Amino acid sequence: MIKVSIVGVTGYTGLELLRILKRHPYVNLEVISSKSHAGKSLSYHFPFSFEEKMIEDLERSIELAQESDVVFLAVPTGVSYEIANKLSKPKIIDLGADFRFNDPKVYEQWYGKKLENYEKFDRVYGLTEIYREQIRNARIVANPGCYPTSVILALAPLLKEKLLLDQTITVDSKSGVSGAGRKDSAEYSFCELNEGMKPYSVVNHRHVPEMEQELSKLFGEKVQLVFTPQLAPMTRGILSTIYVKTKASLLDVYHLYKKFYEKEKFVHVLEPNVFPSTKWTVGSNHVFISMTKDERTDTLVLISVLDNLVKGASGQAVQNMNVMFSLEEDLGLVENPIFP
Amino acid sequence: MIKVSIVGVTGYTGLELLRILKRHPYVNLEVISSKSHAGKSLSYHFPFSFEEKMIEDLERSIELAQESDVVFLAVPTGVSYEIANKLSKPKIIDLGADFRFNDPKVYEQWYGKKLENYEKFDRVYGLTEIYREQIRNARIVANPGCYPTSVILALAPLLKEKLLLDQTITVDSKSGVSGAGRKDSAEYSFCELNEGMKPYSVVNHRHVPEMEQELSKLFGEKVQLVFTPQLAPMTRGILSTIYVKTKASLLDVYHLYKKFYEKEKFVHVLEPNVFPSTKWTVGSNHVFISMTKDERTDTLVLISVLDNLVKGASGQAVQNMNVMFSLEEDLGLVENPIFP
Amino acid sequence: MIKVSIVGVTGYTGLELLRILKRHPYVNLEVISSKSHAGKSLSYHFPFSFEEKMIEDLERSIELAQESDVVFLAVPTGVSYEIANKLSKPKIIDLGADFRFNDPKVYEQWYGKKLENYEKFDRVYGLTEIYREQIRNARIVANPGCYPTSVILALAPLLKEKLLLDQTITVDSKSGVSGAGRKDSAEYSFCELNEGMKPYSVVNHRHVPEMEQELSKLFGEKVQLVFTPQLAPMTRGILSTIYVKTKASLLDVYHLYKKFYEKEKFVHVLEPNVFPSTKWTVGSNHVFISMTKDERTDTLVLISVLDNLVKGASGQAVQNMNVMFSLEEDLGLVENPIFP
Amino acid sequence: MIKVSIVGVTGYTGLELLRILKRHPYVNLEVISSKSHAGKSLSYHFPFSFEEKMIEDLERSIELAQESDVVFLAVPTGVSYEIANKLSKPKIIDLGADFRFNDPKVYEQWYGKKLENYEKFDRVYGLTEIYREQIRNARIVANPGCYPTSVILALAPLLKEKLLLDQTITVDSKSGVSGAGRKDSAEYSFCELNEGMKPYSVVNHRHVPEMEQELSKLFGEKVQLVFTPQLAPMTRGILSTIYVKTKASLLDVYHLYKKFYEKEKFVHVLEPNVFPSTKWTVGSNHVFISMTKDERTDTLVLISVLDNLVKGASGQAVQNMNVMFSLEEDLGLVENPIFP
Repeated sequence: MIKVSIVGVTGYTGLELLRILKRHPYVNLEVISSKSHAGKSLSYHFPFSFEEKMIEDLERSIELAQESDVVFLAVPTGVSYEIANKLSKPKIIDLGADFRFNDPKVYEQWYGKKLENYEKFDRVYGLTEIYREQIRNARIVANPGCYPTSVILALAPLLKEKLLLDQTITVDSKSGVSGAGRKDSAEYSFCELNEGMKPYSVVNHRHVPEMEQELSKLFGEKVQLVFTPQLAPMTRGILSTIYVKTKASLLDVYHLYKKFYEKEKFVHVLEPNVFPSTKWTVGSNHVFISMTKDERTDTLVLISVLDNLVKGASGQAVQNMNVMFSLEEDLGLVENPIFP
Repeated sequence: MIKVSIVGVTGYTGLELLRILKRHPYVNLEVISSKSHAGKSLSYHFPFSFEEKMIEDLERSIELAQESDVVFLAVPTGVSYEIANKLSKPKIIDLGADFRFNDPKVYEQWYGKKLENYEKFDRVYGLTEIYREQIRNARIVANPGCYPTSVILALAPLLKEKLLLDQTITVDSKSGVSGAGRKDSAEYSFCELNEGMKPYSVVNHRHVPEMEQELSKLFGEKVQLVFTPQLAPMTRGILSTIYVKTKASLLDVYHLYKKFYEKEKFVHVLEPNVFPSTKWTVGSNHVFISMTKDERTDTLVLISVLDNLVKGASGQAVQNMNVMFSLEEDLGLVENPIFP
Repeated sequence: MIKVSIVGVTGYTGLELLRILKRHPYVNLEVISSKSHAGKSLSYHFPFSFEEKMIEDLERSIELAQESDVVFLAVPTGVSYEIANKLSKPKIIDLGADFRFNDPKVYEQWYGKKLENYEKFDRVYGLTEIYREQIRNARIVANPGCYPTSVILALAPLLKEKLLLDQTITVDSKSGVSGAGRKDSAEYSFCELNEGMKPYSVVNHRHVPEMEQELSKLFGEKVQLVFTPQLAPMTRGILSTIYVKTKASLLDVYHLYKKFYEKEKFVHVLEPNVFPSTKWTVGSNHVFISMTKDERTDTLVLISVLDNLVKGASGQAVQNMNVMFSLEEDLGLVENPIFP
Repeated sequence: MIKVSIVGVTGYTGLELLRILKRHPYVNLEVISSKSHAGKSLSYHFPFSFEEKMIEDLERSIELAQESDVVFLAVPTGVSYEIANKLSKPKIIDLGADFRFNDPKVYEQWYGKKLENYEKFDRVYGLTEIYREQIRNARIVANPGCYPTSVILALAPLLKEKLLLDQTITVDSKSGVSGAGRKDSAEYSFCELNEGMKPYSVVNHRHVPEMEQELSKLFGEKVQLVFTPQLAPMTRGILSTIYVKTKASLLDVYHLYKKFYEKEKFVHVLEPNVFPSTKWTVGSNHVFISMTKDERTDTLVLISVLDNLVKGASGQAVQNMNVMFSLEEDLGLVENPIFP
């Protein structure tokens, strides 16, 4: 059995980790903690969690978690880094941004915080389908952001094959509200989001440098994104619509993608012109990728959907854990989506 | 008083026309008709309409409507054309696609129907802010589609000034479900659309030729669109996110837009980097346009929001009626949106 | 023209007052104020309000509002009372609870606050259909709560005719989330309310004493309510389902109700076994009442629907203003609901 | 391994059965069938099902399913009965109403169909917590309706202890839209249900005789229900609010319920005055029961929440299967709910 702890269990990604780990056959949950809810059991605050374990405060949990095999960090950006500095023994899967960047200066520029001695950490970017081999032996896995997961998976085969006419890629993403986490703010209240769609951080979202880092690596040259994220009136789900110039035919791209992902359990390539709904993924770790092409303008339209809290966060984190401990990659993750 | 009839009153755009016309101070509603609900009063089927007038069948209504000053056609594509052939006397505002195209062959190609003797009709494309002068004297106004209204208004100033680096424009639109009309289909059922977003007719939507016709006219040269429409889990609202290459600075574009729309009552240009929600327009005839720029890639991102049933359909139809009858353009349309 | 001020314009009832008053033909908006948003125009914070007037702070607005003919108070419970003590000249329509009770001790018990010198105020409970004559000459109108409006209107005819077998009435109400006001709390966030229904304050809601006061007055004897309010995942709307024992036949009750409300513009009695949706009222001041009977158990089921922000708050407030200034009662309120 | 077939796999309860059975460790799925989608694989129509098995037509599936150990019938009322007449060998779990009634005349009266030779069938009402022992050896289990499950579980302890002052019980239930099944009807379209609540079949719903049969059996005397079902704008979830007269104290009732359900894995009794949301159950087989009392009127208010497609249909069906095959009762059902 793997001894697992969750630091930051009461946020949405923390609760989702718990939901997934509770059904994992080889996991012993050791320590759970939270800054805001310490001192009572999780089920006291969230009766539907059916988890009677006491919530520790952060400090204490870090101490206790030294004995764990792996610790999931589901805490605000910046806090993970401090905790990782103290957690010398267990493996770490961080759901935040602190370990996602190759260059800590890029992090500093976008997140406003210096990461001291960043180079000392042995870290891997945790997009499982791309970095599986490196994840196997990593001590720290930087779980990708939700938007980046949806975008990089949708572009990886094309970029690796260098089938790009133009290194500027336009990405228009729509996210469910849970992507923002639990918020005590009228801005995220039911009344102000229900029955409305709105863009935010257009061309200026923190996930842009993360995506550009990874896409450029895949392409072998600098790639630039024009990225618009938008809040949709739904709880879960990301739909990314990606516009890219290519001379490759739609059918060739389709076959390339089928082949690229043929052994993957969670990435599903749909036939050209078959379009998915984010509903196809709710509660599951699956991703659907679909495509069409505007022949007149050499524009390939790639579409990907996933559940931002599962493949976009906690599901992929558990997928990475499975890889790190040489388990079947889909343990705890075989679940079909909830539909309808 | 203007004598007004509505053919096709029981669809969503028909009901919305009624809602708006009932508060219009100079309108006498003469005839209302419907293929599906004839023989009873409107309030019998829709008690919340408070309209006791009998619903006529289509045939009879065409006869009766000859005495009207203006007839709104809110019927399926193809049916409008047949009715217009019979309605020799009144002015006509058609909410469908039959009169939107300069070239009936384009219509035939996309809608699969031949329009005989199309050239005999004196028609104008009813995007009020662009064609106001021609609408004033038109007998038939072809009310624009909901997507085209959101896209053309957002692009008109830029195109007229020819501030385009690339004649391919990427448009990513999100629509509330009412844009599809009332549908007896599980595909549009609450369970299958709620909590999901999905693309449809990607790069292949019928509004593409309509938008390209109008945008090319504004630009003076051929413009091509890569267009992705997507269904959002909300009833009303369109959010169009438009990606266009330009060398013009963000501030110059902003000032250009402010000036272009300064006398318009329904088009509101937001300061750069202020982004609207579709909620800002629900139930109202207003449009908000906002913008930002990715300087690295010379990409201007234009965003527009409107209510697809009001400015995107019935509200603009009434706005056109006001123009056709030399009334204040906002009569019946002064209403603020419902918020929250 | 009536000089009108709104104290507390940036809450949901304040914004809704503004929306309604802007279309009122005889209103001059004089002063608007807010504790949280003073110092900028309303349109700065809420661009969709199209209201350029500056938001005053509460103190200053009270001073300025002395010159108004009528002041709407849309502020938290307790605050209204303090303001009313300072506003000696204008008529007052209070949307809170401070003036709703005949006995200030009942208020104190439920709201935890003493109302000094309560008897000095000339006040009327502002359920227009019931207290129209008294409202005409009142200086202070206590606008009813949203639940009480839906419940009292649904029961008034039956109680006045004393057609009750049992003085305990069961009321099961479902409310849209906007009834709680704008809240900076995760409890009211989109993610936690969407796709869920939940009861709160069961048998213990503050609207119980308000309803019992009014229902007992109508019945002439003490009436007791068992009241369950529930949050529904929608923005606007109240549906109250009321269970009452009676020997009267369904048809007799129907005719009684039709007659009772026959001259009312906003209360609509549906035929037995025709049931409304809250959607029939969104954005409008209308109320639908419907009924059926379980003959086996002598249980009459009364159902009422309304928009909690309109007839349940700001719409009824304007209706009361119209009565107080001898205007047509539906000025500013003729609007049909938004559907769909 | 248990050989399992699903007749009617493409409806919502059929798809939900599949979702649950796919994670069941001892199930071999043998045959799936559908009237509407036969001839292709399930994943062809529902890619998110990841089920490559071919969909048979009904006729053929009945033949094939003779070899199964158990057959789930998720077909329209009336059809089950015909199929059961042909399926002589396997055990049957019917998710419809055909086998729920002790007296086929009651069924005939409410469902308009005669059940020939009803007495020849060995059947049990499949409310697991109440009829566990009988289910163990039954050949045909009549899976309860969604409303009845929520109501009977909430009342069983009280009725068995005969703690009732009045044999008329008022039940006000709110259901997510999926309770109605997949519907090709505008009445169930997103636009017409979103942002609205509405009652239907008030005091006259087909689940009334089912509930009265079971409640009377538990009580030992005739019990009558006044029942109002209401559609809430959400996909899944039932909230039943139950009003019952009793002299028992709230605390005594609470302890009675805790004891009654102490060994149950799926029924959770909350402390008095703690109220659940239907969100606490989405996708899970759990039920929460909560209570409070209006002491003045001796009214106990019982509240229960569950997911209508899981404990209210397919989850309970699998729970019954587990009982019938002497397996752990929660196999395939240990899943926590999806939250948020």
